[in-house]
Amino acid sequence: MATDRATAGTADSGRVEAFSDGAFAIAITLLILEINVPAAHSGSELWHELGEQWPSYCAYVVSFLVIGVMWVNHHTVFTYIARVDRTLVFLNLLLLLVVAALPFPTALVAENLREPEASNVATAVYGAVMVAHAVTFALLWYHVAPTGPGGACAPPSTAGRAVVQCPQVAERRSRPGRVRGIPLPHPLPHRFAESPCQMVKKC
Amino acid sequence: MATDRATAGTADSGRVEAFSDGAFAIAITLLILEINVPAAHSGSELWHELGEQWPSYCAYVVSFLVIGVMWVNHHTVFTYIARVDRTLVFLNLLLLLVVAALPFPTALVAENLREPEASNVATAVYGAVMVAHAVTFALLWYHVAPTGPGGACAPPSTAGRAVVQCPQVAERRSRPGRVRGIPLPHPLPHRFAESPCQMVKKC
Amino acid sequence: MATDRATAGTADSGRVEAFSDGAFAIAITLLILEINVPAAHSGSELWHELGEQWPSYCAYVVSFLVIGVMWVNHHTVFTYIARVDRTLVFLNLLLLLVVAALPFPTALVAENLREPEASNVATAVYGAVMVAHAVTFALLWYHVAPTGPGGACAPPSTAGRAVVQCPQVAERRSRPGRVRGIPLPHPLPHRFAESPCQMVKKC
Amino acid sequence: MATDRATAGTADSGRVEAFSDGAFAIAITLLILEINVPAAHSGSELWHELGEQWPSYCAYVVSFLVIGVMWVNHHTVFTYIARVDRTLVFLNLLLLLVVAALPFPTALVAENLREPEASNVATAVYGAVMVAHAVTFALLWYHVAPTGPGGACAPPSTAGRAVVQCPQVAERRSRPGRVRGIPLPHPLPHRFAESPCQMVKKC
Repeated sequence: MATDRATAGTADSGRVEAFSDGAFAIAITLLILEINVPAAHSGSELWHELGEQWPSYCAYVVSFLVIGVMWVNHHTVFTYIARVDRTLVFLNLLLLLVVAALPFPTALVAENLREPEASNVATAVYGAVMVAHAVTFALLWYHVAPTGPGGACAPPSTAGRAVVQCPQVAERRSRPGRVRGIPLPHPLPHRFAESPCQMVKKC
Repeated sequence: MATDRATAGTADSGRVEAFSDGAFAIAITLLILEINVPAAHSGSELWHELGEQWPSYCAYVVSFLVIGVMWVNHHTVFTYIARVDRTLVFLNLLLLLVVAALPFPTALVAENLREPEASNVATAVYGAVMVAHAVTFALLWYHVAPTGPGGACAPPSTAGRAVVQCPQVAERRSRPGRVRGIPLPHPLPHRFAESPCQMVKKC
Repeated sequence: MATDRATAGTADSGRVEAFSDGAFAIAITLLILEINVPAAHSGSELWHELGEQWPSYCAYVVSFLVIGVMWVNHHTVFTYIARVDRTLVFLNLLLLLVVAALPFPTALVAENLREPEASNVATAVYGAVMVAHAVTFALLWYHVAPTGPGGACAPPSTAGRAVVQCPQVAERRSRPGRVRGIPLPHPLPHRFAESPCQMVKKC
Repeated sequence: MATDRATAGTADSGRVEAFSDGAFAIAITLLILEINVPAAHSGSELWHELGEQWPSYCAYVVSFLVIGVMWVNHHTVFTYIARVDRTLVFLNLLLLLVVAALPFPTALVAENLREPEASNVATAVYGAVMVAHAVTFALLWYHVAPTGPGGACAPPSTAGRAVVQCPQVAERRSRPGRVRGIPLPHPLPHRFAESPCQMVKKC
């Protein structure tokens, strides 16, 4: 889709989101390929072999939900972004590099979960990838909203960066009693929670 | 795509659908990877080896159509959803977790179909995944339309949930003689069939 | 994306296209996974092993272009379709079933191309999948345009089927000397070529 | 999405971009499948085996960034393209053929990086694929902007080709001090840099 490029050096965020959605969807779906398919002659043998693989099922469910939450967070951040500059595109690419790598530590944990020593190593690697994701996500977020609470809503002409759409007043009326989302481990909602007024005022 | 967020705590359903479409498309396409590629020296040997694999072809066709019908149902439900809240996003993620797992039971059935005992186990696992899908689909649907027939069309301000677009009057004029779809095993079309008037009136 | 459903029993074609695009893109990209990655100790050994795999490279290029042409044809047909009914969704699913299966005959041909007898069998299987694709594509097309040349443009209220947008008059002015496309092996462009006037008139 | 086809023999670029995004996203995500998952009994053994695989991690990061930069370039070119003709669709397909092939040379380099001689061969193959990408990208670009600087903005009625949207005057005001993108190895930005005035005037 050709964009009208209203702002200098930026592009519409739509295609970045489409590409990210594709990468997230593929990473989340490739997880199942890491589970071996057993073949057996008797029923009890097959049950046994299927049962033996429980770490693979756990790893699949955990990593699926982890990538899912990453996608929800990514989705939430991009609802505040109307246009992207080139730096944001590359920060997003760095984020996807970590997300797309997740099937590897997932399979590593599944393979080594029953060996006490090796499982420590595998979970350390898994944790390191999680940390790498948190770092790339924070880099992306601080590029979008660099000047503290309220800064995200500075108008595009002065910001010269990724243009952030202002959350509307209706946003503040969300009733947490009805909409119970899983709390995000990222600074995004807290920043917005701290200063909804400033942000709305600046826009 | 940045959304305008007209309703508190919800977002446009477009990106959830794009992500879901991606996951469905990948799950459905990965099925072919589970079929082994035989190599042979003579033509009759290759025919024989290809023929030996008939359970794999059957499993591919059946699972392709199963995931396809799941996608059609998902598609149909989302034509009634204009905006999504966070709970719906996570229920959708749960649904995709089951859909993305389907290549595993498919390969399990294909591997074990010719052993009478083992095939029972494999088909039981396949069935269990089907049941899990039905449960997640029902959870998603009851979140969208929680208060019985007609409830789906309560206006967004009072519902505080995923906002459901009203089916228009034209919808009731569908001629089943011309549009012969495969009947869905889910409660969706029946609920709408029971109470088209109420729904249209309430909106 | 929620649709407005202007026509009875049909839905916007956008999501069907997104799903199809995903399936095509995955099928076309999975082809590379069928090529083995050789490892060697000396440079000449690696050149030799890479050279030994020439049938895999040929199969990759041929199948990539075949799926690519299929996608272009699919794309062209859907530029004439504004809304889809349920039958069209399932015919499209059948088409995708064949497209997604293509990595299998591709690898089969690559594995058996140097055995004279076995290569005949492999190419026969490849050809059979091509025929299956032509049949599903024809089924889809005859559902969209069932009543012969010009029928595709009957107005939605009388057709009761997938709604076809009329090609505009500008369409007839295409200069074949400038836009040199590869001729399609499907009946689509010929039908339109036969009766551009009727179609435009009927709309 | 049905297009309105305002220009003879061309179609909206949206679906070509969606298909390309899908292929890029899959190629970039499949890279992780080429890394083997080691299993070990002791922790130090697993660390050792993980360490042994360093060429695979390097190859993953390098190829991820390479495909990412290719996608950014592709994205940038398509922001100038509003409508596509059939030749552009096939040139784009040729480009994707090379992009989708990248997981193969990536794995080849990773497998052979520690053998001095074999690594030369593997990197030569990798470089050859890079050259092939540059050639296809140049072909695509020269089809879009064939007549030298400024030619890209000739109006559609005289060009008879892929229609290029004019970069607006605002484009020239981009402040490179703020928006620091990685310099592209392709002729695209230079051409535009040479002749911003002519292009804007011609439109």
